[in-house]
Amino acid sequence: MKKVTCTAPVNIAVVKYWGKRNEDLILPINSSLSVTLHQDQLKTTTSIAASRDFTEDRIWLNGKEDDINHPRLQSCLREIRRLARKRRSSGSEDVSGILNYKVHICSINNFPTAAGLASSAAGYACLVYSLAKLYGVEGELSEIARQGSGSACRSMYGGFVQWLMGEREDGKDSLAQQVEAETHWPELRILILVASAEKKHVGSTAGMQTSVETSPLLKLRAESVVPGRMAEMIESIKKKDFESFGQLTMKDSNQFHATCLDTFPPIFYLNQVSQRIISLVHRYNAHYGQTKVAYSFDAGPNAVIFTLEPTVNEFVEVVKRSFPPASNGDPFIKGLPVSPAPLSQELTSAIEGDACPGGVRYVIVTQPGPGPVQSQDPSLDLIGADGLPKPST
Amino acid sequence: MKKVTCTAPVNIAVVKYWGKRNEDLILPINSSLSVTLHQDQLKTTTSIAASRDFTEDRIWLNGKEDDINHPRLQSCLREIRRLARKRRSSGSEDVSGILNYKVHICSINNFPTAAGLASSAAGYACLVYSLAKLYGVEGELSEIARQGSGSACRSMYGGFVQWLMGEREDGKDSLAQQVEAETHWPELRILILVASAEKKHVGSTAGMQTSVETSPLLKLRAESVVPGRMAEMIESIKKKDFESFGQLTMKDSNQFHATCLDTFPPIFYLNQVSQRIISLVHRYNAHYGQTKVAYSFDAGPNAVIFTLEPTVNEFVEVVKRSFPPASNGDPFIKGLPVSPAPLSQELTSAIEGDACPGGVRYVIVTQPGPGPVQSQDPSLDLIGADGLPKPST
Repeated sequence: MKKVTCTAPVNIAVVKYWGKRNEDLILPINSSLSVTLHQDQLKTTTSIAASRDFTEDRIWLNGKEDDINHPRLQSCLREIRRLARKRRSSGSEDVSGILNYKVHICSINNFPTAAGLASSAAGYACLVYSLAKLYGVEGELSEIARQGSGSACRSMYGGFVQWLMGEREDGKDSLAQQVEAETHWPELRILILVASAEKKHVGSTAGMQTSVETSPLLKLRAESVVPGRMAEMIESIKKKDFESFGQLTMKDSNQFHATCLDTFPPIFYLNQVSQRIISLVHRYNAHYGQTKVAYSFDAGPNAVIFTLEPTVNEFVEVVKRSFPPASNGDPFIKGLPVSPAPLSQELTSAIEGDACPGGVRYVIVTQPGPGPVQSQDPSLDLIGADGLPKPST
Repeated sequence: MKKVTCTAPVNIAVVKYWGKRNEDLILPINSSLSVTLHQDQLKTTTSIAASRDFTEDRIWLNGKEDDINHPRLQSCLREIRRLARKRRSSGSEDVSGILNYKVHICSINNFPTAAGLASSAAGYACLVYSLAKLYGVEGELSEIARQGSGSACRSMYGGFVQWLMGEREDGKDSLAQQVEAETHWPELRILILVASAEKKHVGSTAGMQTSVETSPLLKLRAESVVPGRMAEMIESIKKKDFESFGQLTMKDSNQFHATCLDTFPPIFYLNQVSQRIISLVHRYNAHYGQTKVAYSFDAGPNAVIFTLEPTVNEFVEVVKRSFPPASNGDPFIKGLPVSPAPLSQELTSAIEGDACPGGVRYVIVTQPGPGPVQSQDPSLDLIGADGLPKPST
């Protein structure tokens, strides 16, 4: 039995991906750009074992067996095995043995699905990276991860990553590329404000399909707005210009949600809590006369806040004040340490509004981080000697 | 003392106006189209008196004296007096006397400002129409009403009215035109669902200015989407095709709110109640497999519902069920009569959701109606023999 264990990160898009031009290959209608979050706070761990004793490919997600025949999962397995056979013929390590073995895949997230983070991105990135390690495949893998979940291709790299939409019909040029490494902007911090949500939302796969079919503005955004924004965003990241980075991040999040509203029937991902967070961020920035914090929302009500290290303590205090935590014993702040900060009288008045107790369930504090890594730590291994998930997972 | 009293209607845009290319002349960035509501339910009444004894122009709105020097008010006064002088020279009734008199203007709405209806449209239409009657000016007046409030130009006609954006820099071709008279589609009904609102909203003048400055999608909408929609909307009205009319109405409302969200900072006019109404309408239509009701929202959370007469009773029942009226003694239904209607078990399940008591404060039931009219009824006259507002107003 050959076994590998890898971990992979979550990413948050600051130029949003919404809409496919090819559903099977997962080719997007526009390029996008994301920040890879640090795995110390949020990660997927995947162990894969290959053995001649296994009679079929199997997968367990967060401890429960899932359907290995899911088309996107099959795409990833097929493509990476094809690549392994191709690379073998060009003379690397002989993997012909295990290439014929069935695999057992076991994957867990260290964050609750309720956090509303795009777990499929980290999940498919981890799957593809782990399979590549198992089969000894090197090189460009984002094109395969993309076929699992579009945004997964961006989780194949650390730091700041663009997904170039590409032009080819076969998708060979629809790839992720690192723009800057995770060490490039050490002051950057990311806070995830997990909002209390009262209802199920339209899933992103179905949602973006309806948007492509019905929103005239989505098409216009993809053609006329995103190309310029990609260039501006890359420049603001390279210059570490938070004013520009933050403004563009907020504008692009708003525009994505605008195209959801232009979808028919309209899709609402932002709820009252999200709207209050948006208003709070604008009042906070207005108070300082500069963009000190920026929000971004994906296909759910949770806010992702970008800011710089010196602002973290104060802004967390501001969030606590506007969304007094429910005293249910759970920690309100998770991740990187936060210290209490006094709020000036002026700031307090500037951000004054109706407090919304419990509107934010908790805050995860993190920073940009590296791409997928192979673990050498046996304690992270999710598969036991019997080839099945360890009981603890 | 010469005196006239006129009434003018409210209108609801089904292809929305949002954004000016010229702030002073109020020239829009796109054409728009509206339905004029019947004055039996909603109207502005304006009396204007001219007398050699008046020492200055004065205005009273809903019983309180207001600033006559408001630039838009001055534009309307100046333009109509200019037109009166011009027409006089071409040989009609001699108004040279009263043209030199000062005027007293007294105007009231029969609906509360809280209803969130665009009272400025009815108000400026009524002002311009009344001034024209006072000075004996005939012919095209929408260009002057437009300079009071953009959408006021559409309230100068009954039925279905388009406001052609025009091309000229002086605005002479930015006019309203009747598409069909109010008698054209006798089955059409309009319900105004007055939502409970907890906060002040960004005014439409400031809001659209920020949108023009910051929303890339607004520009794209005006250039690439609206021209086609105007043509489609006119066709669906001429054919009395409710399916097409309703779908376009909803899509255009959603797109307007999408451009508000694409504005920076974003503007939210739809609240949780609005979102529930939207969802309710889509579930109701889905149940019947056709567009039986359509929503439209302006710069506030109130819903305007378009439907056909046979659907009114049932849909009002559906609204009552989803938004149980607060039992404060006020009538929940105002305007045209509505009869109780039983809801089938299937329909009840189809629209089932969390009831939101008090979310809709009341419903005004109305239909398309005529443009401004001069009143011959002395009881409507708002100005007393002393040239001042009658005490009752």
